[in-house]
Amino acid sequence: RILLYIHRELKGKPEIFRTSLKKLGIGTFSRIATIQQDTPVIVALNIFLARRVSALPIVDDAGVVLDVYAKYDAIHLARERTYNNLDITVSAALKQRLKVEGIVTCLLENSLGEAISLIATNHVHRLVVVDEGNHLVGIVSLSDILSFLIRPSLSTSQC
Amino acid sequence: RILLYIHRELKGKPEIFRTSLKKLGIGTFSRIATIQQDTPVIVALNIFLARRVSALPIVDDAGVVLDVYAKYDAIHLARERTYNNLDITVSAALKQRLKVEGIVTCLLENSLGEAISLIATNHVHRLVVVDEGNHLVGIVSLSDILSFLIRPSLSTSQC
Ligand SMILES: Nc1ncnc2c1ncn2[C@@H]1O[C@H](COP(=O)(O)O)[C@@H](O)[C@H]1O
Ligand SMILES: Nc1ncnc2c1ncn2[C@@H]1O[C@H](COP(=O)(O)O)[C@@H](O)[C@H]1O
Repeated sequence: RILLYIHRELKGKPEIFRTSLKKLGIGTFSRIATIQQDTPVIVALNIFLARRVSALPIVDDAGVVLDVYAKYDAIHLARERTYNNLDITVSAALKQRLKVEGIVTCLLENSLGEAISLIATNHVHRLVVVDEGNHLVGIVSLSDILSFLIRPSLSTSQC
Repeated sequence: RILLYIHRELKGKPEIFRTSLKKLGIGTFSRIATIQQDTPVIVALNIFLARRVSALPIVDDAGVVLDVYAKYDAIHLARERTYNNLDITVSAALKQRLKVEGIVTCLLENSLGEAISLIATNHVHRLVVVDEGNHLVGIVSLSDILSFLIRPSLSTSQC
């Protein structure tokens, strides 16, 4: 259960932090699971589990991003007294201040360094990537960034 | 892409919230991925990605839980200036206040309602389940609880 790694290659390569997400290809840009404002929370929960994602962008009919609903937001609804409320819509749930993280967006042109800063300073687990018109383009999550950072460097052997 | 659900069965069943995690069988209790205090962050990152989990209990040789290292904790290390520091140990990283969530533990005897309250009030994404001697027993994550809450009630059909 001991793993050995070599990640020396990336050391002293700060230029990757100045390279755009687009160029680095970091994130998910197809088959994004989304919901709408009137989606019931119970439906969102099922999508979280079926798709194994931790958040769903809330979009309008034109694909414009309005907000994001995170798995963690649902825990407040799961309390005994409010449990019957899983039928309410995500927008109603978010209005009831049952919200933890907010939405933080970025552009494909943002650099990896900017994306990391946005995640760290806003205490969010993912960025919703939008275009100039705020249309949904993709998701860049913590997992995507961490995988990227260790991927080229990875040299694993099981002992 | 519209899903229909029936979760009426669970309604008016507050007794499940008073039932223990043990009885309800909520959580993961075997093959828990753990690390030790001297595990390098880069090794922890690889375990996150290989095991697809969001946090790793830090245990000592006797299996006593000392802390937990979450995927999100690593984002602060991934910043440009500290990036070379992925070699440092998890305990050194946690000492540098690069910590977001703390560790919150519970017992198998705690009820589902207590577990939900602990998660919601401490802003953590999972509980580390321990025994009376603080030895690692398992993990109860947000995903485990949400799956449980929608599972018995689930009646899905794709329209
Ligand atoms: N709503 C979503 N639809 C599709 N993919 C997503 C969504 N949210 C996150 N992802 C991707 O799923 C993977 C795991 O995401 P997460 O567990 O949310 O960090 C990452 O590669 C994300 O880019
Ligand atoms: N360190 C771990 N080792 C084994 N299973 C875990 C660990 N952390 C979480 N899990 C389980 O993995 C699933 C997803 O966890 P998470 O993405 O952390 O919410 C849940 O069923 C958890 O109980």
